Amino acid sequence: MSTMQAILNPASVAVVGASNDPAKLTGRPIAFLQKRGFAGRIYPINPRYEEIAGLKSYADIADLPEAPDLGLVLVGAHRVIDAVRDLAARGTKMAVVLASGFGEAGEEGRKRQEQLREAAGDMRILGPNTIGLVNLTDGIPLTASGAMEVDDIPAGKIALLSQSGGILGSLLSRGVARGIGFSKLVATGNEADLEVSDFLEALAEDDSTHVVALYLETIRNVTRFRSAAAKAIAAGKSIVAYKVGRSESGARSAVSHTGALAGADEVYDALFKQLGIIRATTFADLLDIPAALAQGRPMKGSRVAIVTSTGGAATVVADNVGLGGLDMPAPDKDTGTKLQALDLKEAELDRNPIDVTLAGLRPDLFRSILKILVESPSYDAIVVVVGSSSIAQPDLVAQPVLDSLALTDKPILAYVSPDAPGIVRTLNGRGIPAFAAPESCASALQSLAPRTSSRQDGASNARDMDCSDIAPGSLNEAEAKKLFARFGVTVTREVTATTPEEAAEKATALGGPVVIKILSSEILHKSEIGGVALNVAPPDVGAECEAMLARVRAATTARVDGFLVQEMVTGGVEMILGFNRDPQLGAYALLGAGGVTTELYKDAAIRLLPLDRASARDMIDEIKAGALLKGFRGSPKADIEALIDTMIAFSSMAETLGDRLCEAEINPVFVLPEGQGTRAGDSLIVLD
Amino acid sequence: MSTMQAILNPASVAVVGASNDPAKLTGRPIAFLQKRGFAGRIYPINPRYEEIAGLKSYADIADLPEAPDLGLVLVGAHRVIDAVRDLAARGTKMAVVLASGFGEAGEEGRKRQEQLREAAGDMRILGPNTIGLVNLTDGIPLTASGAMEVDDIPAGKIALLSQSGGILGSLLSRGVARGIGFSKLVATGNEADLEVSDFLEALAEDDSTHVVALYLETIRNVTRFRSAAAKAIAAGKSIVAYKVGRSESGARSAVSHTGALAGADEVYDALFKQLGIIRATTFADLLDIPAALAQGRPMKGSRVAIVTSTGGAATVVADNVGLGGLDMPAPDKDTGTKLQALDLKEAELDRNPIDVTLAGLRPDLFRSILKILVESPSYDAIVVVVGSSSIAQPDLVAQPVLDSLALTDKPILAYVSPDAPGIVRTLNGRGIPAFAAPESCASALQSLAPRTSSRQDGASNARDMDCSDIAPGSLNEAEAKKLFARFGVTVTREVTATTPEEAAEKATALGGPVVIKILSSEILHKSEIGGVALNVAPPDVGAECEAMLARVRAATTARVDGFLVQEMVTGGVEMILGFNRDPQLGAYALLGAGGVTTELYKDAAIRLLPLDRASARDMIDEIKAGALLKGFRGSPKADIEALIDTMIAFSSMAETLGDRLCEAEINPVFVLPEGQGTRAGDSLIVLD
Repeated sequence: MSTMQAILNPASVAVVGASNDPAKLTGRPIAFLQKRGFAGRIYPINPRYEEIAGLKSYADIADLPEAPDLGLVLVGAHRVIDAVRDLAARGTKMAVVLASGFGEAGEEGRKRQEQLREAAGDMRILGPNTIGLVNLTDGIPLTASGAMEVDDIPAGKIALLSQSGGILGSLLSRGVARGIGFSKLVATGNEADLEVSDFLEALAEDDSTHVVALYLETIRNVTRFRSAAAKAIAAGKSIVAYKVGRSESGARSAVSHTGALAGADEVYDALFKQLGIIRATTFADLLDIPAALAQGRPMKGSRVAIVTSTGGAATVVADNVGLGGLDMPAPDKDTGTKLQALDLKEAELDRNPIDVTLAGLRPDLFRSILKILVESPSYDAIVVVVGSSSIAQPDLVAQPVLDSLALTDKPILAYVSPDAPGIVRTLNGRGIPAFAAPESCASALQSLAPRTSSRQDGASNARDMDCSDIAPGSLNEAEAKKLFARFGVTVTREVTATTPEEAAEKATALGGPVVIKILSSEILHKSEIGGVALNVAPPDVGAECEAMLARVRAATTARVDGFLVQEMVTGGVEMILGFNRDPQLGAYALLGAGGVTTELYKDAAIRLLPLDRASARDMIDEIKAGALLKGFRGSPKADIEALIDTMIAFSSMAETLGDRLCEAEINPVFVLPEGQGTRAGDSLIVLD
Repeated sequence: MSTMQAILNPASVAVVGASNDPAKLTGRPIAFLQKRGFAGRIYPINPRYEEIAGLKSYADIADLPEAPDLGLVLVGAHRVIDAVRDLAARGTKMAVVLASGFGEAGEEGRKRQEQLREAAGDMRILGPNTIGLVNLTDGIPLTASGAMEVDDIPAGKIALLSQSGGILGSLLSRGVARGIGFSKLVATGNEADLEVSDFLEALAEDDSTHVVALYLETIRNVTRFRSAAAKAIAAGKSIVAYKVGRSESGARSAVSHTGALAGADEVYDALFKQLGIIRATTFADLLDIPAALAQGRPMKGSRVAIVTSTGGAATVVADNVGLGGLDMPAPDKDTGTKLQALDLKEAELDRNPIDVTLAGLRPDLFRSILKILVESPSYDAIVVVVGSSSIAQPDLVAQPVLDSLALTDKPILAYVSPDAPGIVRTLNGRGIPAFAAPESCASALQSLAPRTSSRQDGASNARDMDCSDIAPGSLNEAEAKKLFARFGVTVTREVTATTPEEAAEKATALGGPVVIKILSSEILHKSEIGGVALNVAPPDVGAECEAMLARVRAATTARVDGFLVQEMVTGGVEMILGFNRDPQLGAYALLGAGGVTTELYKDAAIRLLPLDRASARDMIDEIKAGALLKGFRGSPKADIEALIDTMIAFSSMAETLGDRLCEAEINPVFVLPEGQGTRAGDSLIVLD
């Protein structure tokens, strides 16, 4: 058994600082362990007692007859370090440290946390400042939290993993009230050692866990997190995450547009998307979506039947399901005929929601209705609306639904219209996900519907290419494009010139009308100081260069390297392609709408690197401006394959340069009609 | 007393079809009336009884000793019409008809509903197919619904007005469970006669109602609704509406872009906004926002203090409050000093959420903390986060909060982190709006914050101008612009020509490069068939017209009236200004971003007519493209006042033409730099 498995399922537990009074915090853990029927060995450690809760109490950790799998440390902050050192010395695998007064408590606390880590040596630590760890599958509570005093905590398939103990308590209490069962509960506290990623990885191997509900405040090590999440998903677990910090997102970079388009929260969104983690957008969703997923019945399509005996509530559910993008077709002809044959009074069977009126309260009839619906080829999921008439007799609804589950592998969910916590609890407890909010019902269904975006494969695009010849700092446009071109990005045909005369001469050789830009690595926003001229005929190039130089000189003292003379690209769709680095989550690529709309509508898609072709295609589909590439209002289809090539080449450059790359952006990248490729227009690279 | 007031507060009630068995539907209403202590006269009508529930039973309505204010009709659909006729003949003010089987039940039902209306004559009808009407303020239940069997239904300041009986029952049950008090409950059923608007108007005069919570499926008569809502708002009531049908919105018009930009739901949004109705976006908000408003304490600014004794939950609340656009500043220096002086252990007082740790559970200390916060000039509202430690003793939190309410007119709200329906009920019942969902807490706060958009004044812009000279049908661009110009819209300088030669001649007279367009009332999308040429130099105009004619002839057999030669407008911001008619809600104006972005981002604002200047300004602020007008990225500020003039002129035309106007659109309207006005580019008018 690995260390992490031993931590989730210890055979022996030392409780350091235990007391004999179960009403006290220090008395609770052993009382909890005994009450839940922990089958392993419990070793109370307290020199003041001979015996605690009927068990021999040890004066010292060193005295224990074996190295315990786990030490639960109940002593206060100032005594924790000694206790942890002793546990480590005795060969304990992990210590759970409940005390606060560490990393969260100023400079002194941070120092104490550092000492704690040192004292632990190779022993793993959960905490400090955690409410602990509860294995509900096997009845092993390792906590002093009053939340475990509740008698009826059902075991189930959902693991709760939280960076806040308060939130863990809140979720547990809400879940229990709704009959939702849990497998493991973990609050990671200060994460001095073990992080959510460690537990996510461990839960990947936990057969009793089907869904992980994750409350996140931050991710300390994104590489670990990505690898752990990938393992859990590969093992068939679903992950649902609620991440706070959504209102803090702001601009990050003064240089490129990319930073302004991607706030911290958008990068988290991208991370979740590419890992296949479902993001809970409301706090309730963090329980409701896992409850639906725990039924283990994914939808094969996006069509939902809503069956009701009460009009208004079904309308509200249908409206929300429709907003979530799912379909609610009316019964097909065959299904309709079968329903009609039941001869339901005043029923509305030719539409969806399907109003069966009071037949919903007659179990045999309702069972027949459900059988027809679950067997109908028109539906991938069924929602049963429970009205006030069922409150007194939940079985009238629950039993036919349970019977129907046996006939099908389609999900069957319930929406409970009146305030009826009892019926919600009963249904959830019997395996029928039940919702009291129509929005939750809709988001739960969405989580069951087939995924529309692909998971990223994680394979690196880095090339074995030496770029050490490029000096650090901002490259000028010509230099930046040359570097892009090395990796396969097609750039505009262009030449550099140091004088107006040279520019005029080279423009004639280039042919056609040209674009002239001032060339300088010190000027980032050329057009704002008159440093760009479009559509200049070759004979006018000399004069235009003179005029431009005068404008630029008047505006800035920046060093000017000369002029860039480019082919004038017309007829393409302008996009922006960017690279930036999130302080927490690392390097990412961005695709957005070009031009004025970039800033106005922030129409952009993000993926953390490495980028694969499927994800690049998803990014195009994700942004509204993607429509411009697909033949918008009669314009020709753009070369989407070439854009994907360009995105991969771009990310390949970013990965090859690695930490050296600070920012990179092509704005615009012109996507020409199909078969004509792309051209990198203005380009920017900042190297370290 | 007006009829509607007598309906809400009848002095006498005839119960037609009453029975002596309170367990039966027909026995319930009198039992309810007696149980709630109805002080007026009750007249059971049933020839089969001498006496019902201790009251003399009448065989016939004609026998009653007085004309009852209200008749509650319990008989089935086939006997309703006679009962209603008899009630009307006896001079009853209103009948409440519970039976179903009318307008909602096919062709036969619709006929029966028509007969019902005829039978009622001048008597008002609530229903049919309603669960009835309950005046909780005065204890007058006029319903047979089992929902009234609950003993503890607190009276309060919120009226529930619903187009669905099932939803009314659901809201009542959820409200009761949360300790929310109601004043009046009305389900309007089929609205054969009385509609939500009638009750909204009546509630405007109901002193016990402070907030109306409205569940809407449709609005039958928008003029009545607008007038009723305006009266209620003017009387100081708040209105919160939940409207289903959000997922049904789709394009409406094949001719203009305006229809494609405004789905049915967007028009409802506009209606609510301009009336000052708060829209509930989640079903829970339909109770949560009224609960907050019922406290009667609007915020004077947008700054919220969150005070907590548990970390995680406060973070979640703060995140949602921030997403809602409210501010959470850290305590100012003076407030911080006062808090520090309380010497709270481990508290975090230099930030917001303000974590007072366990001091939140010591009433005297917590009272001192709240006093400092409510008196702080930094905050306009306080949210108290209630953790699991308070569940056992709700008074530890409730009493200090109640005491603090007396010190201030700022709102104080509570967020309850664990599942604790008891504490939510206690707090709400004692006047402290309490929320179990962080999203609800945030939207409730938003509803208390100062309004950012103005209410429309409703004054008409119609002019005394005869437009009978304009023939019905589609106008061509030149005709449309002439009509716009009559109302004060500045159009591009332009001339029409019938031949290429005439066009060339007139272009020279117009001067500068010009735009040439094919002139035809039968061609609506000119550019798609090559019927538009931009930036044509006057010497090239003749040849361009010849080529254009050839292109158009190749594409269509539509009648061509000639050519339109226009000044080429440059340097302005392109917007779209539109008029359309919603089948339910009527005529509206739309302002949107011009160009490709119009369709891609649907960046548009809508207002039902008539439009006033303040609302026109709100529309500009509401759309993202509004930023382009305010000096975007160094470009000059656009002439916003002239755009508002144009919008008012546009709406003035629409109101003057009244029902004759089917569609109108200026796309683009060029908004030139400040002081240079606007120019109507392409224009479209369809008249009836």
